Amino acid sequence: MQRYNFIVVGGGAAGPKAAAVLRRRLPQASIVLFQKEELLSYARCGLPYYASGDIESLSKLTQTAYGVERNQQFFENSRGFEVRTGCVVESIDRQGKTIQVRDIENNQVFECSYNKLILATGASATLPPLELPESERIRTFHSPSDAEAFRKLAERGQVGNCIVMGGGLVGCEVAEAAGGLWGIDVTLIELQGHLLGWQLDREMSELAHIELKRQGVKVLTSTKVTRVLLSEKETPIVETDSGESLATDYLVIAAGVKPNVDLPKTCGLELGESGGIKVNARMQTSDQDIYAGGDCVESINRLTGKPCYLPMGSIANRQGRVIAENMAGNDTTFNGVIGSFMLKLFDRNIGAVGLTQRAASELGLQSSAVWGSFSDRPDYYPEHNSYTLKMVYQTNTGRLLGLQSVGAGNVARLIDVFAVYLQKEGTVEDLLDFEHGYAPAYSEALDPLYHLACMVQANEKGQSFVCPGCVGGDDSTLLLDIRENEEVEESPLTGVLALNGRDVKQIPLGEIVNKSEGISKDSRILLVCKRGARSYQAAKILEAKGYERVDILAGGLQSLGG
Amino acid sequence: MQRYNFIVVGGGAAGPKAAAVLRRRLPQASIVLFQKEELLSYARCGLPYYASGDIESLSKLTQTAYGVERNQQFFENSRGFEVRTGCVVESIDRQGKTIQVRDIENNQVFECSYNKLILATGASATLPPLELPESERIRTFHSPSDAEAFRKLAERGQVGNCIVMGGGLVGCEVAEAAGGLWGIDVTLIELQGHLLGWQLDREMSELAHIELKRQGVKVLTSTKVTRVLLSEKETPIVETDSGESLATDYLVIAAGVKPNVDLPKTCGLELGESGGIKVNARMQTSDQDIYAGGDCVESINRLTGKPCYLPMGSIANRQGRVIAENMAGNDTTFNGVIGSFMLKLFDRNIGAVGLTQRAASELGLQSSAVWGSFSDRPDYYPEHNSYTLKMVYQTNTGRLLGLQSVGAGNVARLIDVFAVYLQKEGTVEDLLDFEHGYAPAYSEALDPLYHLACMVQANEKGQSFVCPGCVGGDDSTLLLDIRENEEVEESPLTGVLALNGRDVKQIPLGEIVNKSEGISKDSRILLVCKRGARSYQAAKILEAKGYERVDILAGGLQSLGG
Repeated sequence: MQRYNFIVVGGGAAGPKAAAVLRRRLPQASIVLFQKEELLSYARCGLPYYASGDIESLSKLTQTAYGVERNQQFFENSRGFEVRTGCVVESIDRQGKTIQVRDIENNQVFECSYNKLILATGASATLPPLELPESERIRTFHSPSDAEAFRKLAERGQVGNCIVMGGGLVGCEVAEAAGGLWGIDVTLIELQGHLLGWQLDREMSELAHIELKRQGVKVLTSTKVTRVLLSEKETPIVETDSGESLATDYLVIAAGVKPNVDLPKTCGLELGESGGIKVNARMQTSDQDIYAGGDCVESINRLTGKPCYLPMGSIANRQGRVIAENMAGNDTTFNGVIGSFMLKLFDRNIGAVGLTQRAASELGLQSSAVWGSFSDRPDYYPEHNSYTLKMVYQTNTGRLLGLQSVGAGNVARLIDVFAVYLQKEGTVEDLLDFEHGYAPAYSEALDPLYHLACMVQANEKGQSFVCPGCVGGDDSTLLLDIRENEEVEESPLTGVLALNGRDVKQIPLGEIVNKSEGISKDSRILLVCKRGARSYQAAKILEAKGYERVDILAGGLQSLGG
Repeated sequence: MQRYNFIVVGGGAAGPKAAAVLRRRLPQASIVLFQKEELLSYARCGLPYYASGDIESLSKLTQTAYGVERNQQFFENSRGFEVRTGCVVESIDRQGKTIQVRDIENNQVFECSYNKLILATGASATLPPLELPESERIRTFHSPSDAEAFRKLAERGQVGNCIVMGGGLVGCEVAEAAGGLWGIDVTLIELQGHLLGWQLDREMSELAHIELKRQGVKVLTSTKVTRVLLSEKETPIVETDSGESLATDYLVIAAGVKPNVDLPKTCGLELGESGGIKVNARMQTSDQDIYAGGDCVESINRLTGKPCYLPMGSIANRQGRVIAENMAGNDTTFNGVIGSFMLKLFDRNIGAVGLTQRAASELGLQSSAVWGSFSDRPDYYPEHNSYTLKMVYQTNTGRLLGLQSVGAGNVARLIDVFAVYLQKEGTVEDLLDFEHGYAPAYSEALDPLYHLACMVQANEKGQSFVCPGCVGGDDSTLLLDIRENEEVEESPLTGVLALNGRDVKQIPLGEIVNKSEGISKDSRILLVCKRGARSYQAAKILEAKGYERVDILAGGLQSLGG
């Protein structure tokens, strides 16, 4: 029986990272990594870009930056540990500290012993509770072979239309991959009331929805797939609870992922309430000689202290290092997650970090939110793009809880900045001290986060902002459009704001001080401008003139996708 | 005599901001703003882009995002305070709480009284200690008329070549403005040993230098202009201390700015050691009824607690708000600056925040630094660009002190993220917990800041990194190039690394474990790769094989501009 100091199960992100760091710390240790598939340490997050044709070949995703394949030989020669692919770890004897491994090729089972074991078994695509017919045209989107199967058919022009089941992160990515370069007609079906429900509150998700529609993707929310069958031509048919029967050339199941925990379960390791392996801050399982990391473990949310499941390649890598440091005797902790996320959806950048307002409320946190629309650079600068932000904070303490953003602008910068504030337990007041690197090619003189903090203060002083998702119903409100005449001509009010019979007046901001006479002091007024900032000025002018019922459409028309 | 609750002197950034916030807080107060020039609240930072032709008309810089001119009427109607341009405040009677104002047009002096006064007198361009001939072809670059004068001549093709005196932020911006669209031959003359000396350490500044040269800009450092005269054709001639006499069509003086403090000085307000008006955290001067903010005040550096002078539009705006809040009775503080900066220099993004290593050392802080070169997105993603970073930290405490970065990649994101760590007194260890928004369209799975933190740990464990600025001299070192053969063919070693007679070997990383036999164990080895990461792996492999004198070129060839 082969004896190893360290055995790693799983060749995705956390496993190879742990093994590589261990080797650097302990040059003399014997380290082996077992993995079922041949592909090692590939960039799973790049699969949508392979499927879409943006990345030429799958091998790009398995190569280092300098073009060398991350295969068995690479890990042995450049990272210094042994790798055995085609090997399934079938069981663990924790008492004897051995594992039983099946070599798939020769179907032989052999045994190895370990001092310490690392479980990095990853995750698998979740399947819906439906009978799914066997077909090359019905697949999840989780592995390289999933991406390959889709692309092969798409390249041959055999996918005229496609249904994506699941409007989460992967579902949205696949919708873009199919609808973009290939020009496939895509229908996205989501069980919940809105897309990206984990990441975005409903009104922010609406902006993603608008973009998908703009790009020709059909979106069905609050829709349950009740049955999947095959037509006579062997193409999928999807039936929904609204009675529709949708014929398609390809069905992608993007219903989320679940941790691979069969192995830890059968050997009696403790699992968490999220379903992932339970680990302490040192990434140690309930067996002190077994560590675990990556998509198979449960994480702790830094903001709530509560367990959660957040499978992300970036987190897996960091956990791999923590495991190795602890095994090498350098006491190190993984201090939980905050839930950062970015998504490119056609011409929109979508990001979120921390808690949505819904999540905060479900956790019993007393939270408030502000919304704002901004340009990412000065409007005079040749290139600039806009975005809409929603910031969630704890009402009583001012502690920051989360940020969501959607727009063509540089969203990633703000998400990452906000992630640090969340990590360092920042407050609304801290945002007023944020000193960003200012130059017209990169940012506005005052950062959007600064403006959001000012809005919180205005909120607290009694200024009434109306959430973009809450505009509509009340027809007794006078809608006061304070944009310039040219702006109104260029983009007239549409959608919920242009409801029949609604009372609408247009007075540009600069004229309100002199021209509000026609409006009764008793009117309930909803101020509307492009991004929201002008409405705040107008509210102050009207209040000074004695108007007492003035609301602001938070984030302006842009927050409604205008 | 007109009596006002609040008088503001200066219509740049801090003054109008303070007046606008005051108006919102105190709807009944009387507020007036005096300003000498007609132009109010224009975007000074946009001037280089007007000069370069990137922005069509100067009026773009004086307009709101929605196209309305920020003139007297705008401030009165949309911001609710009185503005009087063409008025110079000549003196302040602090006892009597009055000011004397000269109306330039009719040359009349009148008096106004105040309860509280705000000084936002801005800054002026510094002139070198030289006699400068009167000429439309010799100008500073600080005001709209400066930008206009340059552009008019450039547009008419009357500037074939141009000398910029001063290699700081504005000097570099002007060099790009002239050299870019207009294709003017530019010579940049800097007194100090390297460009951007306040923002970058020498070796990082070298990367800016390389970019300027690549773009055809001639750079003369450590060069003093000794005399400026006019030729017979009335074009400037610049003589330097190296004996050169340079004829040019246009001379831009970009020797920095100094606070406008004549007014506060004559009325006896205290000035700080940096030359700016001394204010407390509430932005109050030594007279409790006079507040000051913007480019005329001294700031406190948050990292050192020491006074400094940092004129930035973004900071001025924030100070304006603090002034107004305090005047309105809402106790608020401005908590100092950290020194964030961004510069677009042709195809490079340059940023810095916090202290350079030189500044840290001058302050007596025991500091260390790490360097790294990275891609801003995965190399498999169709669009990605690289940058080189230098991170400075306090050696004994691990407290973060500063970040510098130069490259074609998305530098601004990192600078702003780092700014928050500095604001929240972050440590190297905090960077290991940074949870950035990861998706291939925006970032790598592991953030560059995470890698830098790992390098600090490697540093502390004894790994020897050689600063990119310190490579060269020692010819007894074996230079071991561990890049792949294709990489070496594509970009062979150049510059300091290709010194005559230097001992160079090339073994790709993956082969080192088996092929290092030819290298003596006593050799002093300098490992070289593209970005530095591979060298760290190679160092570990060599150390495990018994090599004891292995150094790494920090940041790889990219840190040398390769």
